[in-house]
Amino acid sequence: MSRSESVPQLESDAKTQSGVINDLGYAALSPTTPLEPFAFTRRAPGPHEVLVKIAYCGVCHSDLHASRNDWGSTSYPIVPGHEITGHVESVGEAVTKFKVGDRIGISTYIGTACKDTCDKCTANKHQLCRVGLIKTYNTPIPEPDLTITPEAMAATHLRTRGGYSSHYVVHEKFAYRLDPRLDMAATAPLLCAGITVYAPLKRHGAGPGKRVAILGLGGLGHVGAKIAHAMGADTTVISSSPNKVADARRFGVKVAAANDPETFNRLAKSFDIILNTISAEIDMKKYMPLLDSEGVMVLCGLPPSLTIPCMPMVTGERKIEGSYVGDISEVQEMLDFCAEHGIGADIEMIKAEEINTAFERLERGDVKYRFVIDIATMPKPESK
Amino acid sequence: MSRSESVPQLESDAKTQSGVINDLGYAALSPTTPLEPFAFTRRAPGPHEVLVKIAYCGVCHSDLHASRNDWGSTSYPIVPGHEITGHVESVGEAVTKFKVGDRIGISTYIGTACKDTCDKCTANKHQLCRVGLIKTYNTPIPEPDLTITPEAMAATHLRTRGGYSSHYVVHEKFAYRLDPRLDMAATAPLLCAGITVYAPLKRHGAGPGKRVAILGLGGLGHVGAKIAHAMGADTTVISSSPNKVADARRFGVKVAAANDPETFNRLAKSFDIILNTISAEIDMKKYMPLLDSEGVMVLCGLPPSLTIPCMPMVTGERKIEGSYVGDISEVQEMLDFCAEHGIGADIEMIKAEEINTAFERLERGDVKYRFVIDIATMPKPESK
Repeated sequence: MSRSESVPQLESDAKTQSGVINDLGYAALSPTTPLEPFAFTRRAPGPHEVLVKIAYCGVCHSDLHASRNDWGSTSYPIVPGHEITGHVESVGEAVTKFKVGDRIGISTYIGTACKDTCDKCTANKHQLCRVGLIKTYNTPIPEPDLTITPEAMAATHLRTRGGYSSHYVVHEKFAYRLDPRLDMAATAPLLCAGITVYAPLKRHGAGPGKRVAILGLGGLGHVGAKIAHAMGADTTVISSSPNKVADARRFGVKVAAANDPETFNRLAKSFDIILNTISAEIDMKKYMPLLDSEGVMVLCGLPPSLTIPCMPMVTGERKIEGSYVGDISEVQEMLDFCAEHGIGADIEMIKAEEINTAFERLERGDVKYRFVIDIATMPKPESK
Repeated sequence: MSRSESVPQLESDAKTQSGVINDLGYAALSPTTPLEPFAFTRRAPGPHEVLVKIAYCGVCHSDLHASRNDWGSTSYPIVPGHEITGHVESVGEAVTKFKVGDRIGISTYIGTACKDTCDKCTANKHQLCRVGLIKTYNTPIPEPDLTITPEAMAATHLRTRGGYSSHYVVHEKFAYRLDPRLDMAATAPLLCAGITVYAPLKRHGAGPGKRVAILGLGGLGHVGAKIAHAMGADTTVISSSPNKVADARRFGVKVAAANDPETFNRLAKSFDIILNTISAEIDMKKYMPLLDSEGVMVLCGLPPSLTIPCMPMVTGERKIEGSYVGDISEVQEMLDFCAEHGIGADIEMIKAEEINTAFERLERGDVKYRFVIDIATMPKPESK
């Protein structure tokens, strides 16, 4: 039983060789309704695109925000999901990076609207594309060559649809090879959570001799702890959940209690890098002094705002910076790094039909540490 | 008519060849009383030290804060002043950098308590010394070789005394050569305001092709505008004072009105570097989006706190960092740069006895742009 969409066949479909792909996923039809089965079409791959049969899709907190239109940019129906692993089902005629049957990953964006001409894209900062990022869901659908027509931009109901579904069509440039050592399910969350923590750790030279703190041990934090530790950094998780102490130790890192005032005395000036993965406001007067002078706090989570004390910022030349996923080159590098070091997310596998329960638990922070949808449990698309 | 201090001769004086220096300056004797003439002694220079006859001393906003104990660290009597120019009156036997009669500058700190052994000092980050900075005033007085004894640390009434006085004794390493092209009075404020803006501009590559905004056109801001412009950066002052527009233009830079909402639309994503020289809280939701992606806002002023919006920080990978004066190598470099480019502060010269009026006007922001005390107007020390 699923709703289906009465949209005209996408204009771009006419240009493809093999017509449309019938897909079925889970969509939110409004900010206030649960996700439900939803039939829709994807265009068949263009020359440089591949059709992916999805195996697993991670459930990111931003899927929940987008489904509820928390950021005001959602067009309904929305099919979330940008932590995708699967297998190549077919390839466009010009594809060289993948062949049918290959394991493949898809991350948070599938194109850049400048078509790699802007200063950010040419500097391997695709995530900051000047013209716009074509995100894995909820962005006007690009043509197979990554052009977005003005018509597509205006037609707000024709948006990219994410990985809470059976298939995906992606330009080979924005898809990733998965090393045979990577577990398909545990790797799915790396495509967002992994790159979000890997990129800033790499940028700031996390490794032997560097002291890294991870604030919050959730979806982002637990992957951050594993990656920082694997990079050789002296890594400490600072968490307010006593029941996560054992997990942190299992990841090989130190742990400190955020609700113990002594933590903040003991660890003053102790870190070169703090990854703040907490999506709520925290008392920055307590946390900033944990940074050594010239240290940096990287914002990975998205609290609405943070109030920073200026005196320790200035006298210790401390820094705060935002970090936004990573470049396509860094996503591949992160996946290869995780393969090399045996890193995957700690996951709870769910069936597709359990997505609304998963959202509720996610909202309470009740997950260790990432839900992953087993896409084999997705209802099958009806034939058209 | 001046108070004088009945302190025992400093222990270190006993080690010097020529006894004590009788000095007379202006001191605050309590947080709530005006500055008044105050007689005290300085020890004579040690082997690596020089005795400076002060010509000019700039009036920094932090002098006002320290005099009133706004930061809770003031020991009374306090003689403020850390923007000092003058001439060498005598030199210790081992001094090689200066000779009698040389023009000389003294900045915000006159030593580091680690004696150049810590990782920060050896990395030319003296301003972040691990053990402590010996500031130009209100820090326990070091020995001539820059050691601070535990006794001196404990004897809180024996503090360094600043440039609101006739003389200063400084280790040659922490004093600066003044190029003949530098005006002695207009250069005094560069020793704090100048280095505070120069160091971050240099660090972030301000120059041709870089877009710099200066928030606030005061003591720091007007020097920042001149230096950024001289570095070749495309420089814009953002000020809420319409009567400063002409000044900004005179400095050769663009100007935008902080109280015109259109400014924030027009200049969205327009800057690589923003120097925030405003010491009050500002609406960061308006200012952060003025930064281009990967741009940095440098905090030079000291508002108590700033509330930052996280979304534009993250999605644009924007940065905020504190910056604290600069290294001794950078102070000399800044002075040489200002000599080369004809840069000095815009000053209002005052007599020593006008210091309390100057403090009052400073508090109202009523100065264009830095008060400088003509030390020739200082009462002469009585002979002991």
